[in-house]
Amino acid sequence: MIRINEHYRKLQSSYLFSDIAKRVAAFQEAHPETEVIKLGIGDVTRSLPPACIEAFHRAVDEMGEDATFRGYGPEQGYPFLREKIAEYDFQARGADVAADEVFISDGTKCDTGNFQELFAADIRVAIPDPVYPVYLDTNVMAGRTGAFAQGRYKGITYLSSTAENGFVPTLPDEPVDLIYLCFPNNPTGATITRDRLKEWVDYARDHQALILFDAAYEVFIRDDGLPHSIYEIDGAREVAVEFRSLSKTAGFTGTRCAYTVVPKDCSAYTADGEKTSVHALWHRRHTTKFNGVSYPVQRAAEAIYSAEGRPQVRERIDYYLENAARIREAMRGLGYTCAGGKNSPYIWIDGKTESWLFFDRLLSRAGVVCTPGVGFGPCGEGFIRISDFNSRKNVDRAMERIKEALSSR
Amino acid sequence: MIRINEHYRKLQSSYLFSDIAKRVAAFQEAHPETEVIKLGIGDVTRSLPPACIEAFHRAVDEMGEDATFRGYGPEQGYPFLREKIAEYDFQARGADVAADEVFISDGTKCDTGNFQELFAADIRVAIPDPVYPVYLDTNVMAGRTGAFAQGRYKGITYLSSTAENGFVPTLPDEPVDLIYLCFPNNPTGATITRDRLKEWVDYARDHQALILFDAAYEVFIRDDGLPHSIYEIDGAREVAVEFRSLSKTAGFTGTRCAYTVVPKDCSAYTADGEKTSVHALWHRRHTTKFNGVSYPVQRAAEAIYSAEGRPQVRERIDYYLENAARIREAMRGLGYTCAGGKNSPYIWIDGKTESWLFFDRLLSRAGVVCTPGVGFGPCGEGFIRISDFNSRKNVDRAMERIKEALSSR
Repeated sequence: MIRINEHYRKLQSSYLFSDIAKRVAAFQEAHPETEVIKLGIGDVTRSLPPACIEAFHRAVDEMGEDATFRGYGPEQGYPFLREKIAEYDFQARGADVAADEVFISDGTKCDTGNFQELFAADIRVAIPDPVYPVYLDTNVMAGRTGAFAQGRYKGITYLSSTAENGFVPTLPDEPVDLIYLCFPNNPTGATITRDRLKEWVDYARDHQALILFDAAYEVFIRDDGLPHSIYEIDGAREVAVEFRSLSKTAGFTGTRCAYTVVPKDCSAYTADGEKTSVHALWHRRHTTKFNGVSYPVQRAAEAIYSAEGRPQVRERIDYYLENAARIREAMRGLGYTCAGGKNSPYIWIDGKTESWLFFDRLLSRAGVVCTPGVGFGPCGEGFIRISDFNSRKNVDRAMERIKEALSSR
Repeated sequence: MIRINEHYRKLQSSYLFSDIAKRVAAFQEAHPETEVIKLGIGDVTRSLPPACIEAFHRAVDEMGEDATFRGYGPEQGYPFLREKIAEYDFQARGADVAADEVFISDGTKCDTGNFQELFAADIRVAIPDPVYPVYLDTNVMAGRTGAFAQGRYKGITYLSSTAENGFVPTLPDEPVDLIYLCFPNNPTGATITRDRLKEWVDYARDHQALILFDAAYEVFIRDDGLPHSIYEIDGAREVAVEFRSLSKTAGFTGTRCAYTVVPKDCSAYTADGEKTSVHALWHRRHTTKFNGVSYPVQRAAEAIYSAEGRPQVRERIDYYLENAARIREAMRGLGYTCAGGKNSPYIWIDGKTESWLFFDRLLSRAGVVCTPGVGFGPCGEGFIRISDFNSRKNVDRAMERIKEALSSR
C-alpha cells in the first residue's frame, strides 16, 4: 500500500492570501465604484530593465538557429553568470566568494525550501516569528516538528522579532543547529547591523551550527554601514549559506532567476562528528534534482551586471524606495510607529489593534489592501505590512485616502 | 551540531559521463586529426521551432513594458498552457485529463526526483535496471535504501529489463508500493504495448500501489498501436502519475519546460488506511517549494500546440527518427541485435562483449562516442546506447566509419 508522508498532515493550510482575496472581493462587490489599490503582495510592478530585455532577445535568437542553439547547460549555471555574481555582488564589497561557490537556480523559494534536505531529520531548527512561511512548511514536511498548537509547531525554536528587540531576534536560550535569518527582513523590513550579525556568526561557530541567510532584499540596502552579505562578517564562510534573488532586484518574479552561495569552507558533521563539506552535499543535491535555469533567462540575468544594466536596476530600486519613504512618512504622520521602509520595500506598521481589524479598516474606509501581520506568525499580531511595489500614482493616492479616512474619525 | 542527512553517504558517485569525457580527451590528444562524432549524450541538436521563437520574443517584449509586464504567475503554470496540454496531449487521444490536473514545471528530472517526497520513508520502491539514475538517487537520499553492494542498493526491488523480456520488466514477485516505469525507455529505447501496460495498472490497483510513469520520450511514438499515455489504459487515473517533458519534444533541454499529470482520482493512504488525494499532496508540495516556470518560456511552450508549431515539431522528430533508423539499420547490417531506434531516439545495442570494451572499440577505431550500457545498471552490461541526436551528416559519417572499422577486422 502506497502510504503518504504523514508529516504533510501536520501542515496548516494558509488561508492568508485567499482570505484577503475574499474580503477584497466582498468589498469590491459592495463598492463597485471604488478602485481598490493593492499594497499587499510583495510582487514587483516595473518592467524588466531594457538591458535585460535586449540580452533576453539575443539569447532567444541563438536558440532559433542550429549553429548557436544550446541544449543542456551546467546544472549549477553558466560560468558567465556565476563569475559576474561573484565579482559584482561579493568581491566588489570585499566578501570572499568564488564563482564556483555560486549555484544559479530558479528561485530563492525553491532553494530555501530545499536546503534543509541536506541535514538530519532530528536537528534543532530556529526560525524567526514573524516569518516567510516556506522555512517552516518545508521543515514540517521533512518531519522536524511536532503538531501545530497555538500558532506554532512543536519542536521548532522560534526567534521572536518584536518592537522590543528592534525586530532582530536575540540569540536562543537553547542550543540550535540550523538557523534561518532574513535581512532586510520579510515581513518586518528590519535590517541587521554588522555587530548584531557578527553575534549570530559567532554563535554558529561556537555551536557548530549553520546559518541560512536569506538576502533576497539586499538590493534595497542604501545605508553604507549595513552589511549587504553575511560574508562581510569574519568567519561567516565556515558557518553560513546565503540566498539571493533577482526577483526584487531586477523584476524577475515572473522570469525566475536566483542564486545560492555555498562556500567551500562551510561544514556540517556526520553522526560521529566527522566534518563534511556542505558545498559537496548541495552540489550533489542540485545536480541530481535540478537541471539548470533556462539559458535565455541566464543571459537576461547577466545583463544586470552590464554598464547599461546597473543604472537601470538602480533607477527601479530608487523608485520603489521613494514609494516606501512616502508610505512611511504618511503613516508616521498619522501617529503610527513603523519599522522598515528604509533599506527595504516593506513597511511594518503597528496598527494599535488586531491585524485583521486594521486590515478591514484600511480596506473599508480607504479601499487599500495591505497584509495582516498575524498571517506571518503570532509575533505579527497587531501589525500590518505595506509593500512599496506599485506605481507612484497609486502609492500617493493610497496614502491620501488613508490620511483622509483615518484622520477624519 | 549541524548533522548531515546520513543517507547521502550511501550515494555512489557516478563517473559515467566524466569517465567518457576522459577517454574521449585521451583519444583526441592521441589523434588530433580525427573529428570525434558524439552520439552518446541524450541532448537535442536542432533549434527551437520557429513558432516557439516567435512566441518567446513576443513574451519577452511583454516583460519590457510596465503595462504588459507579468510578475509572479501561478505556481502550477498558466491556464493557457495547462489547457492546451490537456486538450492536445490527452483529450485528443481519448485520455481523460483535465487542465487542473496538469502541473507545469521546469523539468522531468526535478519532478521525478521530487515526487517521492510525498510518501512514507518505509514504502517499498520498484525501479527498473537499466535506468535513468535520478529515480534511484533521490530514493537513496530519502533513506529508502540500504547500502550499495554489487551494483545495487539494498532495499530496492529492481525490475530487470533484459533481452529475454523484450526490455519490458515483468511484475515483481514481492509486493511493492511505488513503481517507476519509463516508456519509450531511456536507455533501452523499448516501448510498451497496451496489454503489458494494463498488467502494470492492474497490479497497482490490486496492490494499492502507485505508478510513476515517465513518458519524456512520448513524441517519438509513431506506431499507432502503442499507448502514448498511461491514461489510455482503463483504471490508470486512480493509480498513476505521468511525467512529460518538452526537452526532447521540442528542443527545450536548455529552455526548461515540462509537466506532470496528477489525476484527482489518484490515491495514497495514511498509516491507518485512509484514502488521501495525491493531487492535493503534490499541489501542496509544488506551491510550497516551487514558484512557477518563467512566463516567456511558458509562452514558447504554448506555441508547440499552434497550427504553425505542430508541423515544426513533427518535422524535427521525423528528422531524428530517420537518424535512428539509419543507425539501427547500420548496426543490424553488421550483425548486432538492436532494441529501440523505432518510436524512440535511442538504439540499445548488444555489443557481444563488455560495454566499456565496445565503447573503446567504437572510439578508437571509428572516432564515435556512445554510452556504455553498464553505466545505467548491471542489466546494461554488454550493451551500448547510441543516441540519434546529431546532424544527418554526422550520423551518416559515424555509421560509415563504424562499418569500415568493424567489418574490416
